[in-house]
Amino acid sequence: MPDHYRSKRRIEFADTDMAGIVHFSRFFVFMEAAEHEYWRHLGLSVHLERDGDIISWPRMSASCDYRRPARFEDELDIDLRIERQGGKTLTYQFEFFNGDELLARGQLKTICCICNPGEDMRAVPIPDFITAKIAAA
Amino acid sequence: MPDHYRSKRRIEFADTDMAGIVHFSRFFVFMEAAEHEYWRHLGLSVHLERDGDIISWPRMSASCDYRRPARFEDELDIDLRIERQGGKTLTYQFEFFNGDELLARGQLKTICCICNPGEDMRAVPIPDFITAKIAAA
Amino acid sequence: MPDHYRSKRRIEFADTDMAGIVHFSRFFVFMEAAEHEYWRHLGLSVHLERDGDIISWPRMSASCDYRRPARFEDELDIDLRIERQGGKTLTYQFEFFNGDELLARGQLKTICCICNPGEDMRAVPIPDFITAKIAAA
Amino acid sequence: MPDHYRSKRRIEFADTDMAGIVHFSRFFVFMEAAEHEYWRHLGLSVHLERDGDIISWPRMSASCDYRRPARFEDELDIDLRIERQGGKTLTYQFEFFNGDELLARGQLKTICCICNPGEDMRAVPIPDFITAKIAAA
Repeated sequence: MPDHYRSKRRIEFADTDMAGIVHFSRFFVFMEAAEHEYWRHLGLSVHLERDGDIISWPRMSASCDYRRPARFEDELDIDLRIERQGGKTLTYQFEFFNGDELLARGQLKTICCICNPGEDMRAVPIPDFITAKIAAA
Repeated sequence: MPDHYRSKRRIEFADTDMAGIVHFSRFFVFMEAAEHEYWRHLGLSVHLERDGDIISWPRMSASCDYRRPARFEDELDIDLRIERQGGKTLTYQFEFFNGDELLARGQLKTICCICNPGEDMRAVPIPDFITAKIAAA
Repeated sequence: MPDHYRSKRRIEFADTDMAGIVHFSRFFVFMEAAEHEYWRHLGLSVHLERDGDIISWPRMSASCDYRRPARFEDELDIDLRIERQGGKTLTYQFEFFNGDELLARGQLKTICCICNPGEDMRAVPIPDFITAKIAAA
Repeated sequence: MPDHYRSKRRIEFADTDMAGIVHFSRFFVFMEAAEHEYWRHLGLSVHLERDGDIISWPRMSASCDYRRPARFEDELDIDLRIERQGGKTLTYQFEFFNGDELLARGQLKTICCICNPGEDMRAVPIPDFITAKIAAA
């Protein structure tokens, strides 16, 4: 079992800004896309229905430290690790590489919620079938 | 009754790309924001509830002709005109100005729909209370 | 020689809006990304240096007709055709499919320009080495 | 001298995602826009030329804690404070309010750099004329 899941992403023109580099806010979109790819890799979706409830993962916090810029057409490797699994929360760490060079390191803390339309969102313990999939990954 | 509604918008850093100018896709976001400001100016919302139905306006088509670039911190005037009101559709024309200079001209064709959660979207005639608001604007 | 170039794209969460579908402006970003992938397929970049000049392709116009919505995690096929090559311009047509279903049809008209930093952009005839690559594709 | 600068922002449709709320990455764009508005309030620009050099402020880190969601057409108050001014760095704190309700709290750490085209970016001490403007704000 590897300790991380690796995702790849090609930088697009619309990711850049007038400084000629990827806009810092895009790294958060990249983290989320890697997270969701990881869920598909688990055979799940980040947004799924179970016993009539919609289970989804709102963000509690997000952060990123930037070391070096990414540029148009760069092909990034994005490594995702689960840093901590709490009773209701999942915290991911992300590392962005261009070849061997570390560009940025980020974190997302998410919380397992029932998000049914027309109801208030409520946090719930991470269901066993999800914990099992993560453990088996 | 003026023949157009004028909206203002300051260009943000995240609107720009590595060519040093506003990314062409942002003009479509700017058109939509001007459209929605116009609806608030009518005393309505582009997304409203009436008799238990959600009325909204999906896009049928969008287009933009670009003449001159917009840049960071430019303050644009965005003029909206209703070009055509059909039985179920509203077509808007937009002109983007930087001072006296025309930067771009765009168009959105939208269609009045009932968009209730859990149902298929269906096109409906534009309700009279909306037609009346537009006529009085 | 096939008459089109096919690109694939997975819809991301950040592409969606509160209507539960892909925001209409994102289709323009998708067209551009397919265009740039096509340039890499030609062995070129949409933004390249030649004899000390930066050659790039500003957009003259963009349009899209929407038939059916795209949704989170859909995998779209995006077919690009060169609809017309003028002396200085390239016009692309795009078709977006979800399986066999046509979701949208778009167009980008671009113009070949020298875009050196600190100079005004100027339109130039499409260089022969580019025309040759397109013809051979 | 107030201890913060207040900026206002109306949530747009394109800020939302299929969860019906503002996408978490947009809060970083909102922070940056408030930062840049603050620079204009100082009579400066975040991206300015001085003695032939371009001075700009790359991001070293960014973070946000989310408490409650923001929704379409909400009018947010965004309060900016300078949390720390180092020799070369400026750290901002942001609080997002919907009326009296705190929605989110964020931070940007930025570093003063000479960013001339064709040169490597290099960090420099914050110029005195900028420090003076901040102190007088």
